[in-house]
Amino acid sequence: MKTAAIIIVGNEILSGKVEDLNARFLIAELRALGVALRHVAVIPDDVEAIAAAVRGLCARVDYLFTSGGVGPTHDDLTIEGVARGLGRRVVRAPTLEALLRAHFGPDALDSALRMADVPEGAEMIGEELRWPVCLVQNVYVLPGVPEIFRRKFLAIKERFRDTPFVLRSIWVRAEESRLAQGISQVAAQIPEVEIGSYPRSDPDGPVVRITVESKAADAVARAVARLVEGLPEASLLRTE
Amino acid sequence: MKTAAIIIVGNEILSGKVEDLNARFLIAELRALGVALRHVAVIPDDVEAIAAAVRGLCARVDYLFTSGGVGPTHDDLTIEGVARGLGRRVVRAPTLEALLRAHFGPDALDSALRMADVPEGAEMIGEELRWPVCLVQNVYVLPGVPEIFRRKFLAIKERFRDTPFVLRSIWVRAEESRLAQGISQVAAQIPEVEIGSYPRSDPDGPVVRITVESKAADAVARAVARLVEGLPEASLLRTE
Repeated sequence: MKTAAIIIVGNEILSGKVEDLNARFLIAELRALGVALRHVAVIPDDVEAIAAAVRGLCARVDYLFTSGGVGPTHDDLTIEGVARGLGRRVVRAPTLEALLRAHFGPDALDSALRMADVPEGAEMIGEELRWPVCLVQNVYVLPGVPEIFRRKFLAIKERFRDTPFVLRSIWVRAEESRLAQGISQVAAQIPEVEIGSYPRSDPDGPVVRITVESKAADAVARAVARLVEGLPEASLLRTE
Repeated sequence: MKTAAIIIVGNEILSGKVEDLNARFLIAELRALGVALRHVAVIPDDVEAIAAAVRGLCARVDYLFTSGGVGPTHDDLTIEGVARGLGRRVVRAPTLEALLRAHFGPDALDSALRMADVPEGAEMIGEELRWPVCLVQNVYVLPGVPEIFRRKFLAIKERFRDTPFVLRSIWVRAEESRLAQGISQVAAQIPEVEIGSYPRSDPDGPVVRITVESKAADAVARAVARLVEGLPEASLLRTE
């Protein structure tokens, strides 16, 4: 099973000035692609914080995505942070520099040309994009502006596609603690499924949604059947 | 300046089955309270992942909040993870056990009584709550169900109140790279303010929002004045 993590670089998110849209978007996309997301970190615009997050996550997942911090200003520190996290130097990419000079003209400012800097060994992917995605090792460096983030991810998403997840849900009217033992048993018997249990208050009494998921549809079906069998009498509301 | 971090424990968030509402709520609340949020981590229902996140964050901030994983089922592992992260044992809290027995009656199930388990040395806070908040060291353990998460946080929020932040914004019509040098200079001259720069595409050309913030209103005012002075001619749209 392919796994992923997301690093959102952004003081603006942590301070509530801007709401995160990119993690939310990517969570749904990765799920639909069949990729298991293991971690989302929202961290400040700080080189050491970025480097520490990259260092901590890149070896634990197949794909690590970063969002934000790639513009021309003093608070754009993701390239430096990713490079430091991977133990690489920052170098100027000639292909990106050429793109910037074409856009800004011959007297392009240094601050603009900074956007051509990448961690050494980075690869540019997403050929049909006007501005490519920087991939270094297993780290995909994406911009923070949500429309651009989406456009870039959509341009490269097919490379991540994997066997889809199968998810089923069982809605039960009961106190969650009355279901706990039965759920634990099935979880132990069929370890290839992941079982979640989510209580909700409801005017007619407590309701629990039990979720069962896996990439193996037969294991999901078996677990759902056993869970339903083990429910307290007349507590099943519906399955989905 | 008081600082905080948030750990959202939840496979259901990582897999996109449920949208995170608790981090979003707490980001806004902490901001309004004048507390600087340094990190948000969304992690799986896994004891070692929880322990590692707690261990990594608790010494770096004044307040660490966890959300989720505190019910009676096999996937509720936050108490164990927090205890392990802080190097403490899990013990049963007599006050919580009494509350559970009062609710579930004399034949309360073991799975229900598990909700009385806390890391050793935990304190119960939020007296007016039917079910208190578990505070251990600087870690506030909150439930994942959004309505209950909110109710509990609102009951204890005044203990976190600090000097408020002052935020001002400058909207500019320009390419961000043309502003970078001026912003960097002011950021270096007035280090007590935090300056952010957020480009946006607009049909009439590029727009950048420059944000200036600090707990020192005079420093913010000075930085805004210098930034406005340094803008390219006729590029200022408005300040706020």
